[in-house]
Amino acid sequence: MSQPRLAQQIGFILEIDRLKTVLRQTRILHEERHENSAEHSWHLAMMATVLAEHAREAVEVSRVVELVLVHDIVEIDAGDTFCYDTEAVEDQSERERQAAERLFGLLPDDQRDRLRLRWEEFEARETPEARFAHAVDRIMPLLHNYHSGGGSWRRHGVNDQQVRRRMAPVRDGSEALWQMVEEMIDAAVAQGMLPQAPPVPPTQKAEAERG
Amino acid sequence: MSQPRLAQQIGFILEIDRLKTVLRQTRILHEERHENSAEHSWHLAMMATVLAEHAREAVEVSRVVELVLVHDIVEIDAGDTFCYDTEAVEDQSERERQAAERLFGLLPDDQRDRLRLRWEEFEARETPEARFAHAVDRIMPLLHNYHSGGGSWRRHGVNDQQVRRRMAPVRDGSEALWQMVEEMIDAAVAQGMLPQAPPVPPTQKAEAERG
Repeated sequence: MSQPRLAQQIGFILEIDRLKTVLRQTRILHEERHENSAEHSWHLAMMATVLAEHAREAVEVSRVVELVLVHDIVEIDAGDTFCYDTEAVEDQSERERQAAERLFGLLPDDQRDRLRLRWEEFEARETPEARFAHAVDRIMPLLHNYHSGGGSWRRHGVNDQQVRRRMAPVRDGSEALWQMVEEMIDAAVAQGMLPQAPPVPPTQKAEAERG
Repeated sequence: MSQPRLAQQIGFILEIDRLKTVLRQTRILHEERHENSAEHSWHLAMMATVLAEHAREAVEVSRVVELVLVHDIVEIDAGDTFCYDTEAVEDQSERERQAAERLFGLLPDDQRDRLRLRWEEFEARETPEARFAHAVDRIMPLLHNYHSGGGSWRRHGVNDQQVRRRMAPVRDGSEALWQMVEEMIDAAVAQGMLPQAPPVPPTQKAEAERG
């Protein structure tokens, strides 16, 4: 190609096509197949657009959109880590750091730095935009699991306490969405699609509360 | 759900999950399957972000992103119309208008109107943002076909003149991208993945140029 900067940008565009082959644990609603991370990212961007008014702090919507569009690109190299797989979660951040290096490194330097900063902003959850982006990212699997009769909860034997812990970041991003999450978890338990965690014995409970 | 406005928004979010089941003619690069319109929309949003500097007129990138995120949602009801299928193209706009009515109509009125306006802006191609959004939308299948050795051109017996006509809107959106398009079409012809159109007899050519 006769335009080297454009050629580099197109190289990146072609490489990120691979995100369409990264499969998540969740399935799509209207067909029997796993969701991939590219279509998931589109869905999050639409959610961010439609739900932004519910953010706990005022957010710049276009920035939330940018964060969610970029946030999963590292999975091209690092894979999708199932959130309830404690072993894989351990070295996840190192794998993702290396992936960010290679993938954003395909771009011209100025764009490499900008997209990498966006990804780091998402990961750090220190801005209102990042906190809200995490909130929508977390509720999506909840919506999918709830509306498919239990979905990946059932397949992996997850209980309500695990889901509540996993959903905790929603509260940091949005009070309204958190209220919805609590209603949905309660309903999922009531409808038998999410088992309740075994009750904690009183002594352990007291310890857990102290610690 | 105890929050009616939020419930309506979530209803829309769940319904547009269907865009993940709308298949396009193009295939993805690293697996043997068709691309769906949801992952395509994500890819366009990333392209818009990375390529915006090449727009013919200055564009607000976040607006281009919003246009491409929304532009295919009508396909949930209207289907993906293959651009070289002249019959289907005929009633495409009426089918898409009805689809916009129903789908954006799932949202609260203010958001229904805003998203619908975005879709109409994309379709009308009257703003710099819409023209650039069309440019990236058009080059994506070219990139895919070129990098998969001919792809849907080969399967549908499309020739270079048809591709040049189809790509014409790229020129309105970006001179740099148009130059790349011309180079790629020439290379595709030279490499035998795109047949040349039969030469037009001189009399017909003169008529065509007058008309």
